[in-house]
Amino acid sequence: MATEKAPLPCPPEIAALDAQDRLSTFREAFDLPEGVAYFDGNSLGALTKASKERVLHTLEQAWGQDLIKSWNTHNWIDLPITVGEKIAPLIGAATGQVIACDSVSVNLYKLLSAALSLQPNRKKILSTRNNFPTDLYIASELAAQRSPNAELILSSPESLVDAIDNTVAVVMLTHVDYRSGQISDMAKLTEAAHNHGALILWDLSHSVGALPLELDQAGVDFAVGCGYKYLNGGPGAPAFAYVAKRLQRDFKQPIAGWMGHKNPFDFSPSYEPASGVQSIAAGTPPILSMAALDGALDLFSNVDIEAVRDKSIALGRLCQSLISQEPVLAELSLAAPERPEERGSQIAYRHPHAYAICQALIARNIIADFRAPNLLRIGFAPLYIRFKDVFALVKALAEILQSESYTEERFNERARVT
Amino acid sequence: MATEKAPLPCPPEIAALDAQDRLSTFREAFDLPEGVAYFDGNSLGALTKASKERVLHTLEQAWGQDLIKSWNTHNWIDLPITVGEKIAPLIGAATGQVIACDSVSVNLYKLLSAALSLQPNRKKILSTRNNFPTDLYIASELAAQRSPNAELILSSPESLVDAIDNTVAVVMLTHVDYRSGQISDMAKLTEAAHNHGALILWDLSHSVGALPLELDQAGVDFAVGCGYKYLNGGPGAPAFAYVAKRLQRDFKQPIAGWMGHKNPFDFSPSYEPASGVQSIAAGTPPILSMAALDGALDLFSNVDIEAVRDKSIALGRLCQSLISQEPVLAELSLAAPERPEERGSQIAYRHPHAYAICQALIARNIIADFRAPNLLRIGFAPLYIRFKDVFALVKALAEILQSESYTEERFNERARVT
Repeated sequence: MATEKAPLPCPPEIAALDAQDRLSTFREAFDLPEGVAYFDGNSLGALTKASKERVLHTLEQAWGQDLIKSWNTHNWIDLPITVGEKIAPLIGAATGQVIACDSVSVNLYKLLSAALSLQPNRKKILSTRNNFPTDLYIASELAAQRSPNAELILSSPESLVDAIDNTVAVVMLTHVDYRSGQISDMAKLTEAAHNHGALILWDLSHSVGALPLELDQAGVDFAVGCGYKYLNGGPGAPAFAYVAKRLQRDFKQPIAGWMGHKNPFDFSPSYEPASGVQSIAAGTPPILSMAALDGALDLFSNVDIEAVRDKSIALGRLCQSLISQEPVLAELSLAAPERPEERGSQIAYRHPHAYAICQALIARNIIADFRAPNLLRIGFAPLYIRFKDVFALVKALAEILQSESYTEERFNERARVT
Repeated sequence: MATEKAPLPCPPEIAALDAQDRLSTFREAFDLPEGVAYFDGNSLGALTKASKERVLHTLEQAWGQDLIKSWNTHNWIDLPITVGEKIAPLIGAATGQVIACDSVSVNLYKLLSAALSLQPNRKKILSTRNNFPTDLYIASELAAQRSPNAELILSSPESLVDAIDNTVAVVMLTHVDYRSGQISDMAKLTEAAHNHGALILWDLSHSVGALPLELDQAGVDFAVGCGYKYLNGGPGAPAFAYVAKRLQRDFKQPIAGWMGHKNPFDFSPSYEPASGVQSIAAGTPPILSMAALDGALDLFSNVDIEAVRDKSIALGRLCQSLISQEPVLAELSLAAPERPEERGSQIAYRHPHAYAICQALIARNIIADFRAPNLLRIGFAPLYIRFKDVFALVKALAEILQSESYTEERFNERARVT
């Protein structure tokens, strides 16, 4: 049950930060629940009014009234590419390199396979032990299945560069660590891979929409990313895949569905891949979910991603500063880089009762998130999080730890979805 | 532009068929466009009021208001299984064998791989040349990729049984042919495969929701099927996969995403598959599209699938009979089994101007569908197609062919989606 409390008065210096925020008007583009401070946009982004409108139109008019004709009249058939093109500028990709389809896991499977097929004389997939679990699962099972022609090698993040040598086929990394928020140096690591003839594949799930990315400039080969975190594409939104132009002629992905065919409507019995990123598509895309992502992305056409990053850093810095001013919050130990510049749009703290603390926050309508075994993770989605929300979060945390008003019996409840 | 015409008066004997139709009230469960006769439910099923309600609730309440909590409070996390369990009775599957996820293409890739992994001493995938193109694409590229350990062999439908021998790992077939509607004998062919130690994988895309299926009884090993045709799950709805209980302990699918992990929320670095069909899941499912399918399936809990089949046969028989009474329609040549009992819920005719005829029908608000090069395909979704719609279709066809009021310039427009 939510505890009903009048919000604490916000100090004028924090109200001033909101008043000066150049991004403050974007909050109106969202349909946020009343009285809730939502620090979990890094897990599931909030609903935009644009997504709502697009889904309603797709549901009632396109599907309901226009039915099968909508594949052409509402351009459903082109959505994977048109949505991909809306994502492209957010990741520093020129046109013709991004497609929205399937899930991160499925796209990772396709692109890892593609990378291996481009490196017939190498078999190593190199990644880090702290990589996102589903990425490691996909890679380890892919390697097992193709053994002895593929092998997954894991290193610590610190020794990664030394682990790259001329036997590595592809380096698979996540740009922002889902727990600590630590940002990896994309340009440097991409160069390190290329120096040894290795390809590189980046998972941008916890980066895209929150910080500037320059894939083309860094010379990245492949990337995947999530549509439902900072892009606000809705629960389980289609993911995206990036393939650098220079690889598009030779790369081949293994799931040869009809949407990746050169002429899907010829219904030819033999497979001929479409040119470019279209060949990454496999089956028919989930149009309602795609429509939600498509709508949400329109917001970003007006967003200066550098301004988003600046605000994200300022929110993180304020959070740290306010926490340091509350003696009781010394119990929280930082599980993230100290400098906000080195983190994605999130921060994390360790506490033995992190799960119960998280539940106590939720009871106060402050939504943060727990990651086993002892991590309290706080995401700052700069398009709708205000500085005064950070103030409310820290005050609530202090109150919860002061009063120990978190209940142990909640400790074993099932955690929630990333 | 739609041609506005007063509908022809419907003869009393046809009105009587609608009056006697036990399924007639189901039409009210759909949000159909006014004045449209929709013969393309075999390609994209119509919108149910239940889907609309479920999507609106998922969009506005679950995503919009409850946000991340909905993974638990609205059971998003269980949807692949709960939706799968709603499909199970429609395909004659006992509990614990069906999951809704990904697309038909992706699921086919997973299950074909699984079948091959269960047959380490065999490498042949046997299918028919007339199988659905995307199924052939998936199989041929999977075989190419695993060569020399996998190989795709294609036979004619007639010589299929003779082509099954002790070297075949898995027979991959589609139950209802997407063009002709020809039904394959599932029990007989499954037995033929098993007699030679081969596994069998059925694609039920053009069957499920339209005719009774008995997978358990026939001893089927694997199956996939489509959510957006007769199940009315919405454009690009998640597909489903069936794995027979007896194979669930040993089968292994290759796309090891976190949703198929035994304990996804432990975020363990190593992959341990969930037991049973849950391990077929890969990435996060598209919840809005899943909600639409979930809502649509509730309709089927009240449907007697034998009654659906009876009506489907009656609709097909009426269509043939009315066509045979119009001399000008002798130009249409039947491209389907003569007996409606041997067809799925559709019929097809060849005509050199099939595309233009189809467009002329659409201009009269009668939606049928064209398949290259010369096929006019008519689908009967018995939950919303009325006998008087069939009458209107045949009258319109006769008028179009009589007046040759189809325009050639439309011939080269892009065809639509299956």
